[in-house]
Parts: sequence; structure tokens; C-alpha cells
Amino acid sequence: MQLSRRLTRYLPILDWARSYDRNTATSDLVAAVIVTIMLIPQSLAYALLAGLPAEMGLYASILPLVAYAIFGTSRALAVGPVAVVSLMTAAAIGQLGLSDPAQIALAAVTLAFISGVFLVAIGVLRLGFLANFLSHPVIAGFITASGVLIAASQLKHIFGISAEGHTLVDLVGALIAHLPETNLITLGIGGAATAFLFWVRKGLKPLLRRMGFGPRMADILAKAGPVAAVAVTTLLTWGLGLNEMGVKVVGEVPMGLPPLSAPSFDLTMWKTLLMPAILISIIGFVESVSVAQTLAAKRRQRIDPDQELIGLGASNIGSALSGGFPVTGGFSRSVVNFDAGAETPAAGAYTAVGIGLATLLLTPLLFFLPKATLAATIIVAVLSLVDFSILKKTWTYSKVDFTAVSATIVLTLLVGVEVGVSAGVLLSILLHLYKTSKPHVAEVGLMPGTHHFRNVLRHDVETLPGVLTLRVDESLYFVNARFLEEYVLARVAECRNLRHVVLMFPAVNEVDMSALETLEEINRRLSEQGITLHLTEVKGPVMDRLKRSHFLQDLSGQVFLSQYEAWCALKPNTSSGAEEESVAAQ
Amino acid sequence: MQLSRRLTRYLPILDWARSYDRNTATSDLVAAVIVTIMLIPQSLAYALLAGLPAEMGLYASILPLVAYAIFGTSRALAVGPVAVVSLMTAAAIGQLGLSDPAQIALAAVTLAFISGVFLVAIGVLRLGFLANFLSHPVIAGFITASGVLIAASQLKHIFGISAEGHTLVDLVGALIAHLPETNLITLGIGGAATAFLFWVRKGLKPLLRRMGFGPRMADILAKAGPVAAVAVTTLLTWGLGLNEMGVKVVGEVPMGLPPLSAPSFDLTMWKTLLMPAILISIIGFVESVSVAQTLAAKRRQRIDPDQELIGLGASNIGSALSGGFPVTGGFSRSVVNFDAGAETPAAGAYTAVGIGLATLLLTPLLFFLPKATLAATIIVAVLSLVDFSILKKTWTYSKVDFTAVSATIVLTLLVGVEVGVSAGVLLSILLHLYKTSKPHVAEVGLMPGTHHFRNVLRHDVETLPGVLTLRVDESLYFVNARFLEEYVLARVAECRNLRHVVLMFPAVNEVDMSALETLEEINRRLSEQGITLHLTEVKGPVMDRLKRSHFLQDLSGQVFLSQYEAWCALKPNTSSGAEEESVAAQ
Repeated sequence: MQLSRRLTRYLPILDWARSYDRNTATSDLVAAVIVTIMLIPQSLAYALLAGLPAEMGLYASILPLVAYAIFGTSRALAVGPVAVVSLMTAAAIGQLGLSDPAQIALAAVTLAFISGVFLVAIGVLRLGFLANFLSHPVIAGFITASGVLIAASQLKHIFGISAEGHTLVDLVGALIAHLPETNLITLGIGGAATAFLFWVRKGLKPLLRRMGFGPRMADILAKAGPVAAVAVTTLLTWGLGLNEMGVKVVGEVPMGLPPLSAPSFDLTMWKTLLMPAILISIIGFVESVSVAQTLAAKRRQRIDPDQELIGLGASNIGSALSGGFPVTGGFSRSVVNFDAGAETPAAGAYTAVGIGLATLLLTPLLFFLPKATLAATIIVAVLSLVDFSILKKTWTYSKVDFTAVSATIVLTLLVGVEVGVSAGVLLSILLHLYKTSKPHVAEVGLMPGTHHFRNVLRHDVETLPGVLTLRVDESLYFVNARFLEEYVLARVAECRNLRHVVLMFPAVNEVDMSALETLEEINRRLSEQGITLHLTEVKGPVMDRLKRSHFLQDLSGQVFLSQYEAWCALKPNTSSGAEEESVAAQ
Repeated sequence: MQLSRRLTRYLPILDWARSYDRNTATSDLVAAVIVTIMLIPQSLAYALLAGLPAEMGLYASILPLVAYAIFGTSRALAVGPVAVVSLMTAAAIGQLGLSDPAQIALAAVTLAFISGVFLVAIGVLRLGFLANFLSHPVIAGFITASGVLIAASQLKHIFGISAEGHTLVDLVGALIAHLPETNLITLGIGGAATAFLFWVRKGLKPLLRRMGFGPRMADILAKAGPVAAVAVTTLLTWGLGLNEMGVKVVGEVPMGLPPLSAPSFDLTMWKTLLMPAILISIIGFVESVSVAQTLAAKRRQRIDPDQELIGLGASNIGSALSGGFPVTGGFSRSVVNFDAGAETPAAGAYTAVGIGLATLLLTPLLFFLPKATLAATIIVAVLSLVDFSILKKTWTYSKVDFTAVSATIVLTLLVGVEVGVSAGVLLSILLHLYKTSKPHVAEVGLMPGTHHFRNVLRHDVETLPGVLTLRVDESLYFVNARFLEEYVLARVAECRNLRHVVLMFPAVNEVDMSALETLEEINRRLSEQGITLHLTEVKGPVMDRLKRSHFLQDLSGQVFLSQYEAWCALKPNTSSGAEEESVAAQ
């Protein structure tokens, strides 16, 4: 029983396969056909974006899908190469400075392998919460900046020139320098394909609706637009022999199922690829898990983030073993899979069969496929990810978030993807710590007619003579321990005839050892001045901890359960009672 | 006026020098004489500990003291070489793998220079709060572990053998390996000096009291014990020619004032020394500022931590310009200075004159000073810093603090000072973030007869049917945003016939952009299930921010000023009123 539950946890397939029937299979098959049609041009295009031969895109869309079907928990996630991860793959491999195509392919396989092992490891160790260190604005900023970078990196294919670079400045500089070499036929194909695909996105769906298609079908057909672009431009290139007029084509794609492959175990390569692999894993996981959660919520299903790590890790190891490169769950593809009716991860396995058939049968047809067409599909896909509104939103809402998101965008564009996203994460954490290092402390008083206490500066409240009541709006820990001591003593020095200081602790969720020593020091210093220190509204978990120290014995005053009790006890006419009445708190 | 105030801020000397009179000068002079006597053997010993020639200890005790007198804000801090910083200096220079004594001295000067520039820079930028990232337990653990390491590193001098190493394992291993080479006369001198100094610490003060000395005088005389040990063992060595029987002595110490020196600007050296210099600066600052604060508090004076950074930075730059090594404010020396009556930083300047005279007159007398005696003074001084009780204290009080402090101690002893203290800081921060990533959330109810709400599991409280009231015990930000969503939805799924969810926010000090999106998502998901979401006790600063978003318009329920208002509004018999009555909150 215990074993079978554990097995089901690590092998979600055991759960859903039990109730698998013909109806479910039909739904899954339909979805798989649609996703396969969408995935063929995408996988080729993202291989191109990653700087790899086109067939690696197909290879990365077979075994990884099967692995996810076994280990993944999302019913609708479509795994495979995606734009941002492909861009990060290109950047990571670029750092190795390789020129031999075989070595470049080996590096991609190794990157997928390291990423897969890392994902499985943090999944088994249940460290999925690490992904939470990427704040929403940092992710949004990173995706937007990556979208811009990706689009810029594909312009060279549209113009038929060569222009390399991993930053916006390099890319734009190279584009301008090589612009005179533009191949006009390529530009014609690329420009027409881009315009067509933009129109497909905006104009085709309404047209299909008017032609009588249902909304869902219209949506799915519109998503197949890239296939039409691929077919037409390939035929044109073949028919008119455009490849002999300078139009770059995909060329020879090896026929047959993916080869068995193994990662390199060269230490230098691992050293260079380790950090990029970790970043790719985390970004891929965050992107994938957010779409999986959104889709699961729509059908009131649940996904298990830690098991998702294992599922995506298995996919990447699968990719490494079959000549692929890093993969993750893609946003638009998963939405199509979901809308087309996929009910179980088996749909992914059927898609894998579809792509497998393509490698066996369709590869000769890809010879004349212009790279400009693939670039057009990438540009149109990624520009839908670009959304600078996060800058405005955060500017209005929170300057800290704005700082993190703008640093992420600027550094991603100007320095590179890895620096950009790392800086975003570090900056978010540092700014958060900085904020907690100088907590908000409010002097509070009683709202007349209630038992409720609020800030004297914001509300019309009553205070008691000789009593200073401070509400500390932060957990107390080493980063702000010294601040509190200085703040309280400075406030006390300003007041005349002070007899009691009350620290109100409803917002203090932690008092660590450093803060405990600070409280002891404040108590000692106030005692020397003849001032009594009281605490109120100390939470259960904090009180439990304080009881394990000497502080409560040494405290000159009392711990009141509520601020209102302290108010009643310290009121001048009843103040004699305050010394006697000891309220057991917590 | 503006200018003069700024000048006084950066040059505290302008403040105290104005009221300087003959009485103050007398007090300062007396203190300076006593500190000078104490500082001569200490400065020689710490130079030895840092792996530098003895005279560098004297050089580090002249110009730095003058610089601190001009720029420092503490009236009693005695600056100079100290144990922990000297140990860190030895470790930093050790990384360069130098053997040429001139190069080693240059590295020490460079280290002091980098450290000085760093301190001045963070002082001018008012970044002194960075030191708060070192928690009290991490500092205590680091000082204790350093004390053990320092004592172990000095045993070789007591035994008269050579045994190098920067970790406890290396040191103990080398000691055991070389133990057969022990020089018995050296061991006799070292053992006797150590025993004598321990007795001075414990037994001399009571004896002096019985002999009729006042308590303060007895204390100060006892602190001069090392001078007696130095004098006696030097005389013995000279008289009996012990240096020709294998007793290692300080030897030739150049006579005269410190030479003018300049740091190296070799890039490789800077690269290696940069991180150590930063750590030395921070550790030195923390040690110095805590003693300065303690002493200032006793006389109701204040120190300015940011100006202290500038003062200590100037001292280190002074040390670099006069052939010294990194310095900071020492604990025992400052206490002696304070007890001896020092009233202004001028006492430090007079001490500098005293040490300057020593370099002019006393250096020939130091030739026969046995290194074993200096080692004994170091061992006795640092063992008073060793205090493992922090392990027990933190074990009882907080496992998080215990983890950080034990990692600091173990890594400092087994890997080295830099790794130890860095790991302590990083671990404290990560554990704090981890804790906030899974916040405590309590379901609360009304304490009968009050307006106060507490945890249903800890207190006997009343709850309302159809209402789930959750008190969130943490600021909401990106690290815990997803947790809150999962937690609330899971709790809601457990409850039948739920009509209202109330989130009580007295402990929520921040709602960042990620958390705002989470709240919007919770609101949307609850609405779909026909459940109304309310907030209560939202603080002013948080409310200000929420008003800048769409959340309050979209919120299905209300924001109540106090939880009790929410209770009254949602009570079944008045629940019709709850929909109408809109309480303006904030």
C-alpha cells in the first residue's frame, strides 16, 4: 500500500492510465494530430534559434514527450522546444566558443542532460519552492526582453544576411553593418511570411468564424497558419529554384528516428554549462508550471509542482539521450492541446508518434524550406510575448518591483539573458531585505468607541499620558535588530515624563536570537531610566519561543494578550491595578 | 553654516576639540600612558599572528590612531591591530603564496589600503546597515571559532617548532608531526608565561585589591601583566643567552618612525585580496562598532555608525601609508582606555605618540624578546573570546540560529575564516527567506467578551458559520505568493457551505506585485465558487499601495478597518446589512 502510493506519486501515469478508455483516447488523438501539425515548424524554428541543425528540433519533440507522459502531472502540458529556453541554449553554447558542428550538438545534448539531472534532483528533494524566488514582474520582464532579443536575432534570416550577437546592441550593430548584403528574394519571402502570419493571428480567426467554423475550431485552424506558410514557401522555393538565387534553405535533414546520444563528461564543458543549465531549468520550470497550473485550474484539477520538476527533468534527460536540446512546457502549444481536447498526458505520447513519423517520412520535403519562413514564425510567435506594460504597472504599484523589472529588462537586452535574469532575482531579494531592514513603526492610539488601535498620524485616536505605544510593522530579525533598538531609544529620548513603553507585536512573526538580544537591551536601557516595557498581541509561535529564553522573567512590565487590555491596565485611574494584575498571555 | 555642519559631520574632531581643556587633556594623557604600555606587546604579538615582522605591529599603532582621532566618533575606542583581523590578514596573504618578506609586507599594506578605501566608500554612501547582515549568533560563533584557530596557531611558538596551516585540522596535524622537535627551554618559557598570564587574569586583581589598590587601578594594573612577562622573559633570554640554545626571539627590529609606504596596484594581487579585504572590513567594523556603542551608552553619548566607517577607513588608509596592516577598534584595549578615563579621541593620538617614542627608543630592547612570550599573550587574550555557550543558547531558542552558528563555527575551523563567516551570513539569509516562504497562517475566532481574535487551535474562541477567517502571519511577497494561493484554496476546498473568506492582515507589512496578482487570483477563484473575499486590519502603507491598483474595485467583499467590524457585519442575523454597509477602511 505504502509502496504503491509512493509509486503513484513518482509515476502519475499509474493514476490516470487505470481509467483510460476509448473516449479519452479519441480526445487525446485528435489533440495530438493538431499539436503535431503545429509542432513540426515550431521545433525546426526553435532548433534554428538555438543555433542547432533543424533535425535536433524534431529529436527534442519525441522522447521528451514520452518521458513527460510517464512522469508529468499536468493533463494538458505540451512539452518540447520553446522560444526563451532555445535562446538561452544558444547563449550558453555560445560561451563555449565552439565551431565544430558535432561539438556544438554535443554541448546542446550535455546542456539538456545537466538541466534534466538538476530538475530531477530538486524535484526529489522537494525544493520546488526555489522557483518562487523569481518574482512575477521579473519573469514578465525577462520574457519581454527575451522576446525582443529573439525577434532581433531572427531578422538576419528575413534579410538573408549574417549577423551574430547575444545582446541587442551587437545584433542591431551587425544587422546595420550587413544590411547592404540583403538578398531581396529572401526579404520578399520573409516579409510576406511575416505579414501573412500576423494576419493569421489577427484576421484569420474572425474570417473563419464568418465562414461558419465554431470558435474553438477557428482558433485551432488559425494556429495552423505557420504550416501553410511553410508549405507555400517551400513549394515556391522548390518550383522556382530560389535556393540557387541565394535564398537559404534548411537543406539536407537526415531521415529516420533520433540517434541514441550521450552527454559529454568533459569537466571544462560542465563548468561552463552548469550555471546556464540551472538558469534554463528554473526559467523553463517556472514557465511550464505556470501554464500547467492555469490549465489545471480551468478543469479543477491539481498539479504537483515537485513532481512536475521530475517530469520536466525526465523530459530533458530523454532529450539528451536522443540527440535533442533543453525542452520545457510551451505556453501556446499547451493551450492548443488543451483547447483541442487533450484529457491525459497520453496526448503527448501520441504527438511523439506523430513527430516520429515526420522524421521517417517528411524530412526530404524540408530541404527547400526557407530559413526566412522559420524566422517569420519565430518573430510572430515571440512578439506576442513582448509586453512592456509591466513597467507601467509596477511603476504605479511598487517602485521596488519596478527597479527589479527594469534592471531585468535592461540587463537582458544589453548584457545577456543569464545576467539579466540573475540580476533580477538578486535585486528582488536584496531590495526586500533592505526594506525589512528599516521597518515601519507607527505610534498608535485607540479609535474612539472601539477596541481597535491605529496610527496616530493617520487616524483621530486617543492616547494615554506617560505611555508610548509603538506598533512594530515587521518581523524582528538580525537585519533590523539594531534599527529597532536605535528607533525605540530615540523615540523615548524625545518624550518627557514617560512611564511606560508598549510594543505592539501583531505584525511580529519572528523574533530571532539577534532580535531577542535587542529586546533585552531595550528592556535594560528603559529600566535604567525608570520606564517600564510592555508587549502586547504577541503571537502564539513567537510567545512559545520567548518562553524558552530569560526575557519574560527579566521584562520590567507585562505581556498583554490584547492592546486593549494594556490600555485598560495602564489608564491613569486604574494604573495602580496594572502592577498587580498579571495577565497570562498567548 | 551648512558647510560647517557638514564639516563637523565628516570631521568630528571639530566638535570635541572646541571644548578641549587642561582637565580633559590630563585624563586623556593618563589613559594614553596605560594603553601604550598595554599596546606595545599586543601590537608585536598580533604582527606575529598575521605572519608579519614585529615592527609592522608598531607601525600599525601610530598613524591609524591619529587618523581615528580626527575622523572617529567614539570617545574611547582604541584602534590598532586586533586578534581576529590579524588572523584574517594571515589567511588572506596566505592565499597569495608569497615567500619574499618584502612582497608579504607589501601585500599586508595593500590589504589595509583596500579595506580602508572600502570602509570610507560605504561610510560616505551611508551603507553601514550592511553590517546588520551579520547576525549576533554568527558573529559570536565566528569569534569563538577564530579564537580556537588563533590559539592553535600559536602553540608552535610555545613548543618552539614550526607548524603552519589555516585550518584546525592542518594546524593540529602539523603540531603532532613536529612535536618531537620541541625545544624544552622554549616550552619552559612559553608554558610559564602562559600560566603567569592566566594567573594575572584570574588571581592578580583580587591580590592587588587586598594590597589596598582601588578597583579600577587594580584592573588596569592587572591588564599590564603582559608587559611584566615580556620584561622578565626578555631579560632572562638576554642574561642566559637562551637565544643561542634554540629559543626563537623577535630579533632585529628596525629603529625609527614608520617608513612611508604605498600599496601595490598589481591587478592579480587586488583580485585575490578584494573579497578578504571586504570581509576583514565588515568583521572589523562590526567588532569595533559594538564595543564603541557599549562604551558610548555607559556615558550616554552617541556614535554615528556611518561616520565610524569613515573613521576606521581613514585608520586603515593611514596604516597602509605607514607600513602597517589592517586595524580596527579592539575590545579589551578600548575598555582599558575607557576605564583609565579617556574622554576624547585625543587619548588615541597621545597613544600614537607613545608608540612612536617606543619605535625610536625601545626597539633594541626587543631583540631578546622570545616569540613564545608573545604567543602566550595571544593565547591568553583569545581564549577569553572563546565561548561555545552560543551553541546551547541558540539550540534552546531557535534552530535556525543554531544552524547558522554551528555552520559558521564548523566551517571556520575546518575550511577557513573567510568561508566560515561568508557561509554564516548566506545561511542566515537563506534560512530567513525559507521561513518566510511558508508563512504561519492561523484560523482565528473571537475571544468571548472581547473584541480580540486569536488562533482557534490555541484559544477557546467563537467562530461564525459559513465564515472562514484566516490571519496571515507574514508580509506577502514573491517568495510566498504562490504558497498563499495554494493554502487558501486548499482550506476553502475542505469547508462546506462557505460563504465568506476573511483574510486578516495585521501582520502583512507588504504586498508586492507578485502577491497582488495572487490576491487577485484568489478573489477570482473564490468568486467562481460563490464565496466572498474580505480583508481586515489592512495597514496604512499597504492600503495606500492597494489603492493604486484595481484590486479594491475587483474585490468581491469589503475591506474592514477592524476584524471586529467584520465579525459584526458577517454575523448571520445582521448579514443582510453586510452587503449594504460599506466601511471606508485604511
